[in-house]
Amino acid sequence: MSSALRFGIAPAVTATTAPPIPKAREWATSYLASNPELPLLDLSQGVPGDPPDETVLAALAKASSDPRSAKYGSILGEIELREALAEEFNVQYGVGSSSSSSGRKSSKLSAQDIGITTGCNMAFLVLVMALCPPSTSSVLLPLPAYFNHSMVMTMQSVKPLYIPCEPESGFRPSISAARDHLETAKGQSEGSTRPRMICLVTPNNPTGAVYSPRELEDWYDLAKEFEVALVLDETYRDFVDGPPHHLFDREDWRETLVSLGSFSKGYRIPGHRLGSIVASPDLLRHLATVCDCMQICAPRPPQIALASLLPSLRVSLTASSVALQSRHRLFTEIITSIPGWQVVSQGGFYAYVAFPEDYKTASSALGRKRKSLGSEDVAKVLSLQCGVLTLPGSFFCPSGEELEALEGAGTEQLREDKWLRFAIANVDDEAVRQLGPRLHKMNGIMGFGEEVVVVDD
Amino acid sequence: MSSALRFGIAPAVTATTAPPIPKAREWATSYLASNPELPLLDLSQGVPGDPPDETVLAALAKASSDPRSAKYGSILGEIELREALAEEFNVQYGVGSSSSSSGRKSSKLSAQDIGITTGCNMAFLVLVMALCPPSTSSVLLPLPAYFNHSMVMTMQSVKPLYIPCEPESGFRPSISAARDHLETAKGQSEGSTRPRMICLVTPNNPTGAVYSPRELEDWYDLAKEFEVALVLDETYRDFVDGPPHHLFDREDWRETLVSLGSFSKGYRIPGHRLGSIVASPDLLRHLATVCDCMQICAPRPPQIALASLLPSLRVSLTASSVALQSRHRLFTEIITSIPGWQVVSQGGFYAYVAFPEDYKTASSALGRKRKSLGSEDVAKVLSLQCGVLTLPGSFFCPSGEELEALEGAGTEQLREDKWLRFAIANVDDEAVRQLGPRLHKMNGIMGFGEEVVVVDD
Repeated sequence: MSSALRFGIAPAVTATTAPPIPKAREWATSYLASNPELPLLDLSQGVPGDPPDETVLAALAKASSDPRSAKYGSILGEIELREALAEEFNVQYGVGSSSSSSGRKSSKLSAQDIGITTGCNMAFLVLVMALCPPSTSSVLLPLPAYFNHSMVMTMQSVKPLYIPCEPESGFRPSISAARDHLETAKGQSEGSTRPRMICLVTPNNPTGAVYSPRELEDWYDLAKEFEVALVLDETYRDFVDGPPHHLFDREDWRETLVSLGSFSKGYRIPGHRLGSIVASPDLLRHLATVCDCMQICAPRPPQIALASLLPSLRVSLTASSVALQSRHRLFTEIITSIPGWQVVSQGGFYAYVAFPEDYKTASSALGRKRKSLGSEDVAKVLSLQCGVLTLPGSFFCPSGEELEALEGAGTEQLREDKWLRFAIANVDDEAVRQLGPRLHKMNGIMGFGEEVVVVDD
Repeated sequence: MSSALRFGIAPAVTATTAPPIPKAREWATSYLASNPELPLLDLSQGVPGDPPDETVLAALAKASSDPRSAKYGSILGEIELREALAEEFNVQYGVGSSSSSSGRKSSKLSAQDIGITTGCNMAFLVLVMALCPPSTSSVLLPLPAYFNHSMVMTMQSVKPLYIPCEPESGFRPSISAARDHLETAKGQSEGSTRPRMICLVTPNNPTGAVYSPRELEDWYDLAKEFEVALVLDETYRDFVDGPPHHLFDREDWRETLVSLGSFSKGYRIPGHRLGSIVASPDLLRHLATVCDCMQICAPRPPQIALASLLPSLRVSLTASSVALQSRHRLFTEIITSIPGWQVVSQGGFYAYVAFPEDYKTASSALGRKRKSLGSEDVAKVLSLQCGVLTLPGSFFCPSGEELEALEGAGTEQLREDKWLRFAIANVDDEAVRQLGPRLHKMNGIMGFGEEVVVVDD
């Protein structure tokens, strides 16, 4: 088999980080291949551990075997699903129940404000393609950042303006740091990149940080002031208490706000691939052009299956959210009981956890000549030797020169690269309890608490 | 509801033609709303008229209701489907059954040569993103061209180098015209666009033209000589007699060839969204990066459902193909019987049909002041007044300045804009027969054969 290509690959694509999940999967495969006595605890990719509701599975079977679902659908989704989803959002966000500042009741969301995509990654990519011309655009993103968002930046030749977050603030991005970026960009000459959007993920991936409705008001005002889009990735919206924000009650929200969502987490059907975009119909019209070239339509059977079920699934969503919050508490209890480990922030699907500082220099215990271990080393040892699959913090941060060039509060700590992301929602309480002995074992392997031996190269 | 956006839309997206299918759907809606006595004959979007096989529907129901399918899958697809599809291609193309020019048996396709995408539009877009840096790339495309391909060109700021085709040649692109483009580009200075691929759709959309294996050998040699990718969109491959080409038997095919495919037409499941890419593993590695950002994975249930079924569906594919060929003959018989109508080319899902020359000046019959009717006018009248939904040739050609700027053989004829695309595979033989009276009626409405009245504005 010949290996060379006679044509070239676009430099922006070769410069993009390779997908990180397969790397974690390889560790899992290696662990499983070594016939471990302990089952693998997979807390890596954010995948709901519970199966979809029985009613959802039954409806999926029905819709999938209906020849009518096998035909093409509308570019922006089945109208029935868009209507149903608008109603869900009106309920969840309490749209129209409060009066806006002008004293008028705000208008409710309708199907015309909603587009359906083949997952939320697609929703984000479509939006970047529609709003950010390559080579002349920048986007504000808190750091740590969801890796696929960072990858899209490189792939689309859009400059990420990272806002490093401090663990002490629970990884909340500083609005004044964002303002500085926007002010600086405003003062710059033509030819430099122009900010087009602020992208916030709340509840956050990877840190689990949940931004309050009050904070989001401030971010909205900032975006509006600088005439950039405020893009909220609300994939994990079903796992917060109360309305995630009140921005849909603003009369002018359609001028500035775009809210992205997913059916993967709340309804637990990532393999069926459905996401959503809430935006002005004026924007959706342009997004439809991109979507037509990308998906023609999102897969129809899950759209048809869910359209009539959504209201009946509210109880299940709430139950999942309550169970997950209780699991978060259990998780904190377990982690806190392990010497040197610390939960730095948590919420939604994830907990962001600091492994013991000692690990950074405890590498002699691994029989390798290394002075310092980063999060990827630690995640690898934890998976290969203890059967606990997590994602290292390094997957959510730029590396090398890009990391060195970062400025601002939180930057130094990000460079310390000492966190792991645990996807709590992937597993049940029993699995969380099993983490205790596994992390104790890890401490043993890493020689935690023993005298530190620094090995020179 | 406020309508303005405080942020801008990327110029490349606003410049992209709006999706054309919804326009045709509006005509259909208007026709149906006027309570016609005759049912709508929908020969517009290429949608298989027959339902999927019963075994496929049953497998879809099973896979969709299996909680395991609800989890994420591999970025480039289920390994079982990739293996099964490789085997299907090996059989269909007879890979490895003939000896290559070097006398060695060529190697068969394997799962490593195959990626699964959320439909073939995505496959094409992913490829353009991976191979064509915006603003510095060009792509050779025969004209008429599939509208989503042209839209991707504009959206990605890639210059289309159109090769206008002549109806007399059955809309076959001239290889010497393509060579001229490539030679010209080679002689151009830095800073101009560089050709990255030749994209051929065979059987063609919209013209139905089927390029012979011999012709495709020549295209391959041309692409190889100029070090551009030869991208074959083989969405309609299941509707040709015998192997579509022998390029997979070339020892070096992976250096130059990329073959795109779809499950939408052969397996009749467009609503489930599955496409495929056959390419070098060295290319697929980069495509995986783009796919991760776009789809994470293609919908899993249809992948899982089809993986074990493919060999059993060969009989059904052949039967569909035979039935479609017979329907093409019937269609020609019907069209030929209508004064002034002519089938110019046909194959795969489509027939490209010239409406009567007289229509171009027969607009007085419509009670409107127009001197000349284009294909969109004719398609609209045909749908609104006769209940026959087709797509106008104008959907597959650039318009305005871009059309004026075209050069070469076939250009003048393309400007005449006198064709309609009929999607033969959408309907059964009975519907094809019903076309007869409908087109007769159309001739009546258009005053065909009557004295032409030219109305001055």
